[in-house]
Amino acid sequence: MACLVVKFGGTSVGSVERIRKSAEKVARELKAGHQVAVVVSAMAGETNRLVDLCQQVAPMHDAREYDAVVATGEQVSAGLFAMTLQAAGIHARSWQGWQLPLRTDRAHGAARILEIETGLLRERMAEGQVPVITGFQGLAPDNRTATLGRGGSDTSAVAVAAALNADRCDIYTDVDGVYTADPRIVPAARRLEKVTYEEMLELASLGAKVLQTRSVELAMKYQVPLQVLSSMQEDAVGSDLPGTMVVDEDEGMEEQVVSGVTYDTNAAKITLVRVSDRPGVAAGIFVPLADAGINVDMIVQSVSDDGKATDLTFTVPRADLARATEILQKLSGEIGFARLLPASDVVKISVVGVGMRSHAGVAASMFRTLAEKGINIQAITTSEIKVSVLVPQDYTELAVRSLHQAFGLDATT
Amino acid sequence: MACLVVKFGGTSVGSVERIRKSAEKVARELKAGHQVAVVVSAMAGETNRLVDLCQQVAPMHDAREYDAVVATGEQVSAGLFAMTLQAAGIHARSWQGWQLPLRTDRAHGAARILEIETGLLRERMAEGQVPVITGFQGLAPDNRTATLGRGGSDTSAVAVAAALNADRCDIYTDVDGVYTADPRIVPAARRLEKVTYEEMLELASLGAKVLQTRSVELAMKYQVPLQVLSSMQEDAVGSDLPGTMVVDEDEGMEEQVVSGVTYDTNAAKITLVRVSDRPGVAAGIFVPLADAGINVDMIVQSVSDDGKATDLTFTVPRADLARATEILQKLSGEIGFARLLPASDVVKISVVGVGMRSHAGVAASMFRTLAEKGINIQAITTSEIKVSVLVPQDYTELAVRSLHQAFGLDATT
Repeated sequence: MACLVVKFGGTSVGSVERIRKSAEKVARELKAGHQVAVVVSAMAGETNRLVDLCQQVAPMHDAREYDAVVATGEQVSAGLFAMTLQAAGIHARSWQGWQLPLRTDRAHGAARILEIETGLLRERMAEGQVPVITGFQGLAPDNRTATLGRGGSDTSAVAVAAALNADRCDIYTDVDGVYTADPRIVPAARRLEKVTYEEMLELASLGAKVLQTRSVELAMKYQVPLQVLSSMQEDAVGSDLPGTMVVDEDEGMEEQVVSGVTYDTNAAKITLVRVSDRPGVAAGIFVPLADAGINVDMIVQSVSDDGKATDLTFTVPRADLARATEILQKLSGEIGFARLLPASDVVKISVVGVGMRSHAGVAASMFRTLAEKGINIQAITTSEIKVSVLVPQDYTELAVRSLHQAFGLDATT
Repeated sequence: MACLVVKFGGTSVGSVERIRKSAEKVARELKAGHQVAVVVSAMAGETNRLVDLCQQVAPMHDAREYDAVVATGEQVSAGLFAMTLQAAGIHARSWQGWQLPLRTDRAHGAARILEIETGLLRERMAEGQVPVITGFQGLAPDNRTATLGRGGSDTSAVAVAAALNADRCDIYTDVDGVYTADPRIVPAARRLEKVTYEEMLELASLGAKVLQTRSVELAMKYQVPLQVLSSMQEDAVGSDLPGTMVVDEDEGMEEQVVSGVTYDTNAAKITLVRVSDRPGVAAGIFVPLADAGINVDMIVQSVSDDGKATDLTFTVPRADLARATEILQKLSGEIGFARLLPASDVVKISVVGVGMRSHAGVAASMFRTLAEKGINIQAITTSEIKVSVLVPQDYTELAVRSLHQAFGLDATT
């Protein structure tokens, strides 16, 4: 008998009919002899509706009131899900964050989970109850509901799984797993059977929006095996199609150096031309940006001919480009630069894989492949398991497809 | 400085724009120097939407899950209302039933309020906070949310007013007060400036659906002055139109014997022909109906010619007619009657007024008025402040209008 935490996303509880389908999956696990705890998102579209109401009332609203309003989405789906299980003869009840309680910090609107009291939960599960827990929310120290930020239900599910020492956390979503690349761009992209936590983190933060980044961090920290599955597609006899397992590295990974190629169109580029080349100038540029909460990612500094000035290129989130430009223009006297060139027409292309740790030459292969296609690299950044380059946005599809093929990821037909 | 509890119904919080209008009324009371606590219903239509979802999932659902789902309506409107007040520069926060807590009994779906802890509430109000409290719900002994039954937000408001020893409870609704009769039937109907708790109880239970009956009972018990006001209509300068005050009898009532004429089409009639006239036969009929939860209202027994049998007529709620008929048919052998005649085409017409206590002849005037119009009375029931008759439903409008005029209630033009 395994203990499973099963999480259903918005589309998996998007209608009474979808809830019924999802409840059948729970019934199947129970029939197989497993203990199951369920975590649910709000019905598809509901969170957007509630956020929109808050926006209409006041664009700059109290995060505690926002939480009180927006948390109701999961409360509705948890109640309906428990009713559906009951109608199928299964002993079930809904649990809201404040009832467990699932304790969070006081950062309303983007709270972090501190602790989950599992005494009641374990007791009821031992009695055969299937708890249906509201995702995305918990009880803050002010005795009010706090939400975890968009996509937070994944994190709730992993946290519950960690607290219950569950054997697995299944995440039902509207895609059937993690792919080697975006299938809309790369028709030859393959679903990965397994991916490591670290790769998943790089993939998630780079825009493969299958799981919330924090849920993967938490799964890695507590070694919770995660499975991503489609709740929309089934095989001919109504069983789940295979998904992607997110696991620890040593569990027999595929012998692939690169696991996936991703792109991120969320970056913008700023180039400062002829920055005076003196000690402290980098701090003079990047400290004010950090103070404004602007996250600088790739940084390239080109050596100057005369040793007196240098060109500096870096990326910021596209949404922060206007603000970053304004801050730097104001400081132009202090910093000392000839011109500021902002650009949004860039894309960050990355290859990700834990195999890079033991294989040299991934970066070199990447640069060669892009050069062969005539794609100019504007900036480079690397980590232990990732190489990223900034290229003109027009080349997105060409770059992703070329790299996918070059690293041997194309599906064999 | 008065302490006011102000309750806004579904239409008064039905949209962001309506919430803004309602918040202005709160701002006005604060400006006048009063302390205000707000109680809100769900946005118009929202409770129906949530109830419908529960019905779709399972017609016979767990009342605790129903409560978890349906209570979210008020949680949304309370959060939005608090945000709206904040946007107007008013110190406000939403309070959910479990946060106060407002404690109820364990009758999920139709719970009664047991106690409201006001310590936190008084403390925050003393600091200048306007609490915005979710109507219709509280915390049951099982540490889960319980709802009070449809229309329960009125009861929540009165209970909060009683607990805070408030000077008045204002109920904003979509009508501008209590009328002497349904204005759709009686164009000459007048709004009552004042009405007693007891009259309001009779009016409410007879179908003048302005306030929930339990809210009036509670207001009477704790002597909370109630005011019914329209949130939809205002005078030319944006002030409230006068509404109806629901008060204790001694506060200088209008010198009117009859305050209103109501009709109730929710009754059905059953006649048992030639019931054997022996001791215990009434119990043999009414005990099984009571056991089945069927509420018998008017009862008329006609004396038989031969002293051996009698005809018995009584009313039951129309929704229970089929069930009552079935129960009695099954017992026909035991009870002993010749025939059972069910009928739904009846209406209960009532005249209500505390003045009846000191004025004889109201019943006689009523019967004479109906006789003059050729309306046949099928049953009669009276209380200290009410006379009700059962007549054929076709005569509803004629009966109400005739009585309204006969008792001098028509507006003078």
